Amino acid sequence: MSAFLRSLGVEHPLIQAPMAGSNTPALVAAVSGAGGLGSLGASYLEPPALLEQAAQIRAATDRPFAINLFVLPDAFEVDEARVDSIRRRLDALMESEGLTVRTERPARWAPRFSDQLAALREARPAVASFAFDLLGHAQVRELQALGIRVVGTATSVAEARAWAECGADAVCVQGAEAGGHRGTFLHAPDEAMVGLFALLPLTVAAVDIPVIAAGAIMDGRGMLAAQMLGADASQLGTAFLACPESAAAEAWKHDLPQAFDHRVGTIYSFSGRAARGLRNRFVEAMQPFADELPPYPVLNALTAPLRRAAAAAGRGDLLSEWCGQAAVRVRPMPAAALVRTLMEEHAAARCTLA
Amino acid sequence: MSAFLRSLGVEHPLIQAPMAGSNTPALVAAVSGAGGLGSLGASYLEPPALLEQAAQIRAATDRPFAINLFVLPDAFEVDEARVDSIRRRLDALMESEGLTVRTERPARWAPRFSDQLAALREARPAVASFAFDLLGHAQVRELQALGIRVVGTATSVAEARAWAECGADAVCVQGAEAGGHRGTFLHAPDEAMVGLFALLPLTVAAVDIPVIAAGAIMDGRGMLAAQMLGADASQLGTAFLACPESAAAEAWKHDLPQAFDHRVGTIYSFSGRAARGLRNRFVEAMQPFADELPPYPVLNALTAPLRRAAAAAGRGDLLSEWCGQAAVRVRPMPAAALVRTLMEEHAAARCTLA
Repeated sequence: MSAFLRSLGVEHPLIQAPMAGSNTPALVAAVSGAGGLGSLGASYLEPPALLEQAAQIRAATDRPFAINLFVLPDAFEVDEARVDSIRRRLDALMESEGLTVRTERPARWAPRFSDQLAALREARPAVASFAFDLLGHAQVRELQALGIRVVGTATSVAEARAWAECGADAVCVQGAEAGGHRGTFLHAPDEAMVGLFALLPLTVAAVDIPVIAAGAIMDGRGMLAAQMLGADASQLGTAFLACPESAAAEAWKHDLPQAFDHRVGTIYSFSGRAARGLRNRFVEAMQPFADELPPYPVLNALTAPLRRAAAAAGRGDLLSEWCGQAAVRVRPMPAAALVRTLMEEHAAARCTLA
Repeated sequence: MSAFLRSLGVEHPLIQAPMAGSNTPALVAAVSGAGGLGSLGASYLEPPALLEQAAQIRAATDRPFAINLFVLPDAFEVDEARVDSIRRRLDALMESEGLTVRTERPARWAPRFSDQLAALREARPAVASFAFDLLGHAQVRELQALGIRVVGTATSVAEARAWAECGADAVCVQGAEAGGHRGTFLHAPDEAMVGLFALLPLTVAAVDIPVIAAGAIMDGRGMLAAQMLGADASQLGTAFLACPESAAAEAWKHDLPQAFDHRVGTIYSFSGRAARGLRNRFVEAMQPFADELPPYPVLNALTAPLRRAAAAAGRGDLLSEWCGQAAVRVRPMPAAALVRTLMEEHAAARCTLA
């Protein structure tokens, strides 16, 4: 029912969103094995880990899957004074919260994107999806020459057009509702908070490539509503967060049913880049220092050990609890069962209209 | 097809949103006459004008219609220093833009809500809808005793629950996509920017009254998508803005096709209250004074003569160009023709799924 996914041999119009940091090869394989398209969010993985996780997925299923990367420059300026100042803030916060962990200066701030892209080409997934920026035309063609379809992420019509002009095979529109990092690259993040009811039909009218819908889609009725607005397929992330195959911390999974719509906000203080998640104690505590944050990926690297320690201590309130605006609707069940449930609901919803 | 509207004798699951300042009795009557529910946005009307416009609607159609009010306290504190300071800013801006109009201190900042509510009871529309705050239980019951159905506006699940507990007959959820003033009353406005894909099914699950969907619904497919997510009916405002019966200034109508998604923002500088519209020259020019704005309705009253002068001068860039995030999709045609078009699209969309 999805022209794009059918052409890859994927049965259902359903993509499990890349959830960098919380998905696992087991989750990706379970979704792909059940007839959807699983996505490995590989942005935080060095090339050897990316290749190993891709191999683990292949060992578990022979079905197509996607790998997702954040498009970043290989080198970037770092404001050392800002780093020192925010480390003091973060360390003081951890101390006041009774955690012994402290920030450290990492060996490098993030994996080199060009190395990740080379590893992705080597892994040769059916689909490569990208967020945070455009690829170059040549990079897109290189992937396509290997038989890899390219999907860009857009948060406005202008960004979707840019991906189409870049030669992408499809574009995923990330509604303002969506959880996790915003893909925005042409605008200030708060200028591209476009709800799916607007963004989806506007994009479908503006580009000639298939449009995938992401943002607060939690059930089969939501998938059908997205199709009604022109989506070729639906991409669900938060819906899969509470699956046993998800690597989201137990405290995070536990907090999702309390993620009431007005408690899910746009957060900069974990990573230095706009991301949607639960406004918890950490977010409130860092609010006064909003103007002092170093940008992504620097802050993301600095808070990584803190977030790991918070997860280990069961402190969801100090953890980056990414989620979309309908997070309270998560249904904890194995990923394959969730795919089946979604497709049953989708079929039933069609019948109610017929 | 809408349980709520059918019970009133309204044929289509379609409400023309109250668009205070830009709707007219002719627009309301045209929509109601074509089988939808027209709404008179009466918030800026003194009681005699409210009664006169209701009479004009009744003279044009015998079909049900709605009247909408903003719930405000009758009396409120005014910070005179802030008024003086913002008047200087506004007057300087008008001067630099070559308009001779200047701010004036109005006889009163806004019509008294209790007087408006009394006039509404006298006008006795089929539906009374409210935004900005809750009514009291007694006020709701008084309206219902007159045969008037009460519809509240909510921008979060918590607000929808509050209206349901208040005894409302239905609740209209205003997605973050929606144009014009935000109805938010329990949260800071930016904490209740919930997209319709999240807000609608969450609210339907949370309350026992019919839920009306508002926000970037521009065609019959959007109406069907909203129904798929549980809406009893759809409320469209921006879609009707470009109709000949709309009182929106010609310059505003002219600018709507340029209201690209990332140019439609949350604006405080016209009224002192969060409202969605086109980020134009006025909005950019007032940005540096964001912390100096007096609250609604004070700023709204101060800018009213400026906005009238800008409209008369054809200066859309100095006008409050309220619109939803899908405003570029407006279709200028008579309101009755738009209602017919919407319902034809709605029927056709059902067939594509069946």
